[in-house]
Parts: sequence; C-alpha cells; structure tokens
Amino acid sequence: MTRILVPFRSSDPKTRLAPVLKPSERTALATCLRRDVCRAIRAAGYEPTLLSTESTDADPEIVDDRELSAAVNAHLDPPTAVIMADLGLATPDAITRLLETPGDVVIAPGRGGGTNAIVIRDDTFTVDYHGGSLLDHRRNCDTLDLSLSVVDSYRLATDIDTPADLPELLMHASNEAATWLSDRFTLDTSASRVELRRQ
Amino acid sequence: MTRILVPFRSSDPKTRLAPVLKPSERTALATCLRRDVCRAIRAAGYEPTLLSTESTDADPEIVDDRELSAAVNAHLDPPTAVIMADLGLATPDAITRLLETPGDVVIAPGRGGGTNAIVIRDDTFTVDYHGGSLLDHRRNCDTLDLSLSVVDSYRLATDIDTPADLPELLMHASNEAATWLSDRFTLDTSASRVELRRQ
Repeated sequence: MTRILVPFRSSDPKTRLAPVLKPSERTALATCLRRDVCRAIRAAGYEPTLLSTESTDADPEIVDDRELSAAVNAHLDPPTAVIMADLGLATPDAITRLLETPGDVVIAPGRGGGTNAIVIRDDTFTVDYHGGSLLDHRRNCDTLDLSLSVVDSYRLATDIDTPADLPELLMHASNEAATWLSDRFTLDTSASRVELRRQ
Repeated sequence: MTRILVPFRSSDPKTRLAPVLKPSERTALATCLRRDVCRAIRAAGYEPTLLSTESTDADPEIVDDRELSAAVNAHLDPPTAVIMADLGLATPDAITRLLETPGDVVIAPGRGGGTNAIVIRDDTFTVDYHGGSLLDHRRNCDTLDLSLSVVDSYRLATDIDTPADLPELLMHASNEAATWLSDRFTLDTSASRVELRRQ
C-alpha cells in the first residue's frame, strides 16, 4: 500500500491570502483545507499521514519542523505519495487517478511549475520543493533514468494559495473549506473572470 | 461524428498579453495557438472547423463576424464540440478524454469560471460565453434537465490569455506556439513561481 504524506505548516499559514483574509481566518481555512484533502484521500481508500511542523488533531501524524524538502525526504519510504494540504479541489477520483498512474515517479503539477502531488516508487529519488520544482523533478528523473508520468488534472493543479484561487473553491467544491468560504464570501460574476465579494 | 468548432477572433487578439507582447507578436502567437489546437484535434481523429471573424488560411473554415455566443449558437448542430483556439496545452489525449466523456453536455472549465471546451449533444442547449459562463451553463443544464459532465483536465483548463499563462506553455508543450515563445523568452525559476524573461 502506498504511504501518503500530507505536509502541513501550522504557523502563519497561507500568507499569500493576507490581502483578503485575517490571520485567524487564514489559519481556519488552512485547517479546513488539510482536513478536506485527508478526507478525499481516505475516501479513495488510502490512509493519509499528516507531516506537520507542529502537533495538530490529525491521526496518524508525524511532527517534523524541518523545512519542507528535508522533512519529506526524511520520511520517504517508497512507494510514497506526497500530496499538498491545500489542494482544495481534490476529489477521491482525482486522488485515485494519481495513485493508479504507472511510472517510477508520477507528478500532478501545479500552476506555476510546482509539484502539487507526487508518487515516488523508487528509492533513489528525493524531492526538492522550491520555485520550478516540476522542472527539477523532471531533470532528476532523467539523471536517475527513472520513468516520469504527468497527471493531467485541474483539481490537483489548483492549490488554494492566492486570492484568485478562492473562487475556484466556491465553483468546484462543496467540502469543509468551500462551506467555510461561502459563509463569508459570494461569487461576483460581473467581471470576465469570476471574483469574490465579502458578504 | 461530432462536429468541432474552434472560434477565433483575428483582429487585435490576446489583448491581455499586451504588457509583454507587441501587437504583431500577439497576432503571431494567436495564429500558432489556433494551429496547435487544430493539430491536436486532428491527431485525436476529429476534423476541426475554424469559426473565424475573418478569413484565414484554415480549411474548413466558417467566417462569421458576430460576437462569440451568437456565432457559435448559429453553427451548433449537435453533437457539436466548441474548443477555444488558445488552449495551448491541449493534446490529442486531452481532446479524446473530452470527446469520450458521456453526458448531454460536457464541459472542460477554465480557470476563473470560463468554458474552455464544451461538447453539446442536445438540440435545446445554447452557449452563453461571458464572465462565469461555467455557472450559467450549469444552470442551463439544470433548467433543461440535461446531464452535465465536467472534465478534470489541467491542459484544457489552461487558456493562454495573460502573461502568467505563458510559462505554462514553455513547461508543458513543445508545439508551434511553445517553439515561437522559446525563441523569444526563457524560464526564470528563481522566484516561487516560474516566470518568463525576454532573451
């Protein structure tokens, strides 16, 4: 069975949402998002392990306060998947598609060249999260002669990270985070792209 | 066989790319993009018909200078698919997935609530493109009691519309538009999201 790690930074989360959410709201939304991701993983038939910088209410949980790449690499035990805690549109179907895609390494890229979810089935591969991690992970696979598959999923490509990501949650999800958000914001469809308005 | 319409506005295209591309460059990139989309459709085994505001080099082509929704609705003959001409990451696989998804109406949403691609298999449905067209198309399906399927594809969700979309083309495609762009720009991976630098 593939081990599933869900990395989560608990202190001052979602800083890029500061223009529209207060610190306490960012913490609340981040908590909803990670619970939703863990629920989607469970509904797909897998057991998520939260890899958190501090202890939370999650179980099972590994507490490791190192920076993301170091913490993930320390707990890789292939086959292992690493699924980001802010993939607010993740569904059991999307998770299943990720985990059933063959390949030594399988990546669901994020917009902007991130690695939103990755399945690692080879002991020699390590992660390196930073700007453009997709390109580096691709290069690592070439160097190590590992096969890489890329999953074409909008749901896994969408991390809820900036104000422009919030409408996606209201349009495409009905989970805890979407409910939390819809209690505070409504969709404004008068512009060419859907936007949020605080109630 | 499903009819495939690819709407294309030839005058002053891709205005949201004006901060980074000259008018002649926007025209050149828009032409590459629509050719790539038509190639991907053909490679998937379908025949694209360009629905253009002015005559181009495309064949087959319908010239109709009305606004998008009116032009599309005038040429619907279900089963018909409408695939936007700026889906620069579209692959034959993604097109096949769209066209093989069952449903009276099938939508591949764009980021921001757009309708990047739609398959219409019922005579009563008409399109209404504007801000938040996904939500209105969903509502139309409810009203008309039609089944709606949503395709989870990052490739079809990504229209090349703003400067932030251009790196996606360089990271995920190797088509005519990506080649055109890579002759002029390189990827800068020093930021948290990959960005473009003009050469």
